Amino acid sequence: MPVVTFLPSYRKIEVTAGTTVLDAARRAGLQMNVVCGGIGKCGKCIVYVKSGRVEFDRQKYGRFFTPGELGRGACLACVTGVVSDIDVTVPEGSLIQEQKILIEGLDITTAFRPSVLKYHVTLSPPTLEDPSPDLNRLLDAIHRAQGPPPEKIFAPLGVLRRIPEILRSAEWDVTATVGLQPPGKYWLLNVEAGDTSGRLFGASIDLGTTTVVAYVWDLISGKVAGIASNYNRQISCGEDILSRVNFGRRSGLTKLQALAAESINTAITNAANHARIDRDDIYEVMVAGNTVMTHMLLGIDPAYIISEPYVPVVRRSINTAASNLDLSVAPTAGVFAFPAVSDFIGGDIVADVLACGMGASDEVSLMIDIGTNFEVVLGNNEWMFSCAGAAGPALEGGEVLFGMRANPGAIEQVTVDPVTLRPGWRTINGIKPKGICGSGLIDLLAELLTSCVIDRTGMIDTTIDHPRIRQGDHAAEYVVAFANEAGIEKDLVVTENDVKSLIMSKASVLAACQVLMNVAGITHSEIGTVFFSGGFGNYINKQNAITIGLIPEVPLDRIKNIGNGAINGANIALINRDERRTLDVIADNIAYVELNAEPSFMEEYTSASFLPHTDLGRFPGVSAMLSQCRIRAHANGIRKTEA
Amino acid sequence: MPVVTFLPSYRKIEVTAGTTVLDAARRAGLQMNVVCGGIGKCGKCIVYVKSGRVEFDRQKYGRFFTPGELGRGACLACVTGVVSDIDVTVPEGSLIQEQKILIEGLDITTAFRPSVLKYHVTLSPPTLEDPSPDLNRLLDAIHRAQGPPPEKIFAPLGVLRRIPEILRSAEWDVTATVGLQPPGKYWLLNVEAGDTSGRLFGASIDLGTTTVVAYVWDLISGKVAGIASNYNRQISCGEDILSRVNFGRRSGLTKLQALAAESINTAITNAANHARIDRDDIYEVMVAGNTVMTHMLLGIDPAYIISEPYVPVVRRSINTAASNLDLSVAPTAGVFAFPAVSDFIGGDIVADVLACGMGASDEVSLMIDIGTNFEVVLGNNEWMFSCAGAAGPALEGGEVLFGMRANPGAIEQVTVDPVTLRPGWRTINGIKPKGICGSGLIDLLAELLTSCVIDRTGMIDTTIDHPRIRQGDHAAEYVVAFANEAGIEKDLVVTENDVKSLIMSKASVLAACQVLMNVAGITHSEIGTVFFSGGFGNYINKQNAITIGLIPEVPLDRIKNIGNGAINGANIALINRDERRTLDVIADNIAYVELNAEPSFMEEYTSASFLPHTDLGRFPGVSAMLSQCRIRAHANGIRKTEA
Repeated sequence: MPVVTFLPSYRKIEVTAGTTVLDAARRAGLQMNVVCGGIGKCGKCIVYVKSGRVEFDRQKYGRFFTPGELGRGACLACVTGVVSDIDVTVPEGSLIQEQKILIEGLDITTAFRPSVLKYHVTLSPPTLEDPSPDLNRLLDAIHRAQGPPPEKIFAPLGVLRRIPEILRSAEWDVTATVGLQPPGKYWLLNVEAGDTSGRLFGASIDLGTTTVVAYVWDLISGKVAGIASNYNRQISCGEDILSRVNFGRRSGLTKLQALAAESINTAITNAANHARIDRDDIYEVMVAGNTVMTHMLLGIDPAYIISEPYVPVVRRSINTAASNLDLSVAPTAGVFAFPAVSDFIGGDIVADVLACGMGASDEVSLMIDIGTNFEVVLGNNEWMFSCAGAAGPALEGGEVLFGMRANPGAIEQVTVDPVTLRPGWRTINGIKPKGICGSGLIDLLAELLTSCVIDRTGMIDTTIDHPRIRQGDHAAEYVVAFANEAGIEKDLVVTENDVKSLIMSKASVLAACQVLMNVAGITHSEIGTVFFSGGFGNYINKQNAITIGLIPEVPLDRIKNIGNGAINGANIALINRDERRTLDVIADNIAYVELNAEPSFMEEYTSASFLPHTDLGRFPGVSAMLSQCRIRAHANGIRKTEA
Repeated sequence: MPVVTFLPSYRKIEVTAGTTVLDAARRAGLQMNVVCGGIGKCGKCIVYVKSGRVEFDRQKYGRFFTPGELGRGACLACVTGVVSDIDVTVPEGSLIQEQKILIEGLDITTAFRPSVLKYHVTLSPPTLEDPSPDLNRLLDAIHRAQGPPPEKIFAPLGVLRRIPEILRSAEWDVTATVGLQPPGKYWLLNVEAGDTSGRLFGASIDLGTTTVVAYVWDLISGKVAGIASNYNRQISCGEDILSRVNFGRRSGLTKLQALAAESINTAITNAANHARIDRDDIYEVMVAGNTVMTHMLLGIDPAYIISEPYVPVVRRSINTAASNLDLSVAPTAGVFAFPAVSDFIGGDIVADVLACGMGASDEVSLMIDIGTNFEVVLGNNEWMFSCAGAAGPALEGGEVLFGMRANPGAIEQVTVDPVTLRPGWRTINGIKPKGICGSGLIDLLAELLTSCVIDRTGMIDTTIDHPRIRQGDHAAEYVVAFANEAGIEKDLVVTENDVKSLIMSKASVLAACQVLMNVAGITHSEIGTVFFSGGFGNYINKQNAITIGLIPEVPLDRIKNIGNGAINGANIALINRDERRTLDVIADNIAYVELNAEPSFMEEYTSASFLPHTDLGRFPGVSAMLSQCRIRAHANGIRKTEA
């Protein structure tokens, strides 16, 4: 079977001959821009075939290209068949995604019980014998079609005003859209002429500070119709939350609200276009975002969240009409914003909790969401405690000499041979290493520890005679890749200072977990499952995370990744109205522990500033392993140098 | 005591010396324009003292007048004391009322349980120890102040957005307005700085085709703060309902909706100004109107109500925000429109039913609302039947040679001496008669019948030799007032044709009552109370209404006037939320009987086209009385002529 290699990412995929380049790209995980749905009409999915043979009708689709582009191998991916092995360059503009985001396999097992339903009904026209009002006639028919009883359906004035004309122009054959929306009962969201009962969609949104992800669901089939993501447009008002809130203080909230809405609209539009659906057929939008982002989207001032005493305006879930937020979906569509727990435990974390199911389980779970900040939730269906803190940028590759984000060229996995001390690595996209991202750094720390290159305080053992262990300009260092191995023009090293930074970061997370365990009065052995949410968890080596003491020691099979918990929680709440109903209860059940106000935190932090911890009794498995490593290292005597 | 005579109405009132002219006017039933509350500040209550002595400080209040006006006796009624008998001219502009409307003594005995409440609360400012969100802080305080529990209070986005700024600028001392509004639970309608808990108002509206009446209630004290009325501004689009609906068909509903809102706004503004309150402190508006008027106010097309098969769009009660209808009250104020029963039994009739209490009583009642059209409801708390029909204009003084509306100079009461056949009358405002209004015509019919001037078919007995009984140009006639007695330059007569018109009108009403009794399977003896709603009932002689067979024969003490039932029903629903909750049930319980489709109607109509009815067995009391009258008339032989 021909192999398609996509450039510049070098993703490879094997396909049967005749497969379109578009399908190959999809299977390789590339989200291409296909406005027309892949029928050669929109001309958006431009690719350049660099080598190999394809079938492409230049006559028919030539109009999309200049002669120069055609000369460079330009094709439309959707109408280009693979014949032999090919190399294909995908320009940035042909990709939907502006950045790498986590789009997992959606292993959601929730029941499909959407809050919005459509009813195609044919009414008997009124007569002198049966002159009942238009609304009664419609609601009775909805009820006969297994809908809610008429008295439970509220008809907002805007819809009511349109009913008489639509019923008559459609000759009494209409489709009604009915949504279950707090605080009312059922709401009549629309009445359309004819049978539109096959078209009903909902959108779930992860409204992140940096990235907005939209899933558009087909609420008839229960399937995902389209996915898209883009940067949060608010970035033009400031990179981080603090600067955006300050922008709002200076210039008012209007622009921030509009940009949040625009970010969501863009993502929804792209997802909807991709799925060839009309945004006006989207009747519900679920939004999970942190507390500040949610305030901004709703147009509620977040100024008091970011300074003492850190007070949100609202914590509970909010339900409002899409038209109130200028979201480009059906104007009567309900927008549901996830409830928050506190200033730092927002709707995104409540969505994490929903996605991992810990709030519904008897078993005690620990949920960790790590980014520049981290959030931790510990508990079960009876009690939950949460806290948040700054992990520092080290775990994301910041403040580390050769640290970098998870972009192409980043080392994402590392091993260090305990005998030769020679590193092995895997980089993102398989190119030569340019730096090390978070998951690689955790690996490196663990591998250097178990190889006895560093001790439990993070000191590099410079007594080891090895070309990769040396004194650098400022501190001792370990060479991960010499310049000739690396994609940069110097040796790629990790320094003792880097190790210290990493230990400080991991100590914050572990101390936070430990404080919650102290508050709850439980030990690590009572933790059933540890859930990682967010991109971070997807890539880290679980054993290494325990080895360095990033998280409490639990059996590896009890560590699970829930992927992008915010979007998955939003997905669950969108398609399952029973789950949605539990959200405010979940949020209310989560107690917030302010780490700065918790006297034991500093103590736990200090104790956690060792690898894995001062008290090895808390890491019995790691303790045993480290003993063996020391014995082995001792047996090896002076390490062998590399060949 | 001095007598004050108001011109041009010639209303007279006796007052103690020193009484202000304003108070005298009030007691004479004149609603004067007093924006300042009667303290000599606004200069609106201008009157002209034509004769007699008053105390008025020309120096102090002279600034309101030109020297010419002062020369003609101009004073401010509120600061002018009566010294001797005086004649006072009240210019049109000094009166609030544009026309005579029924403002009864408000003998409402419903419980005072308003749907909107205010809570003045002082919150503890947030601290690091207690950083709970603004909304929680506010709702918890409301709950502590005996308000609803926080989870039952819905905070609309518009209010939520203003909370953080108000709480802080008011230094956490605020007043929250909370309303109970279907389909939600409690709604947070406003948050204001400081203590405004003394200011909370509601408005009830009788939205009539011709007249709009507004009552503004103080929802703290449970008292009426102000009353005003004005013409329905839609009159510019057509005098009657039909022509307005047709206007809407041609030009769209927008103008009709705006004019309905403007009519209500004007009435509310006048009532609010009179009471010196801010319209923005009005947080609830109850509207009772007929089905077409209600549709128009809500901006819902009434076009299908007025032609076969006569279908309203909506029958149930409607609740929406004042801002949706452009009503000039608090923008979040709830507007509640009464439910209707059918095309012709609108919210005004449901309000009648609420006002008379028949829907809550075991006893069977008959409620009659008579105008150009009439509506009848028969039933009790278990069942109710209703119907509507055209009474024709005769009962309102139309289509009768000297018929007129209830304006000054109209004969509103008449007696005919059975021996001398000489009439006695009382006119509105006591001036010389210009015509006869509805109540006078009913009297006349009854008196002529019991004097044997007319027989039970309405024929005038021209064999009687009497100067007031004569053959007129077209028919036999009875002279009510000779030209020298009348305020017009000819003899004021009632003709046999007039009598026939009146009989046709009264027969429609009686037949309608009888049809409902037939449908319900009851007789007149099972009717506990007959209620009259509307101006008509207030002025008619009850015995005479029975004597002519306008209504079924019941004991006189069981006939009651509920005044303007529409406004009184709206008042009850405004101030008693429990009563309001029953309205949709009441409306649903009222079955509508279409008279045109009811086979027995024509038969009943024919039978009712006698005085009082073909079957005297249905009017045993009248039957006995008429026998005595005949005996007496026979004994008198030829009547004596007048002196």
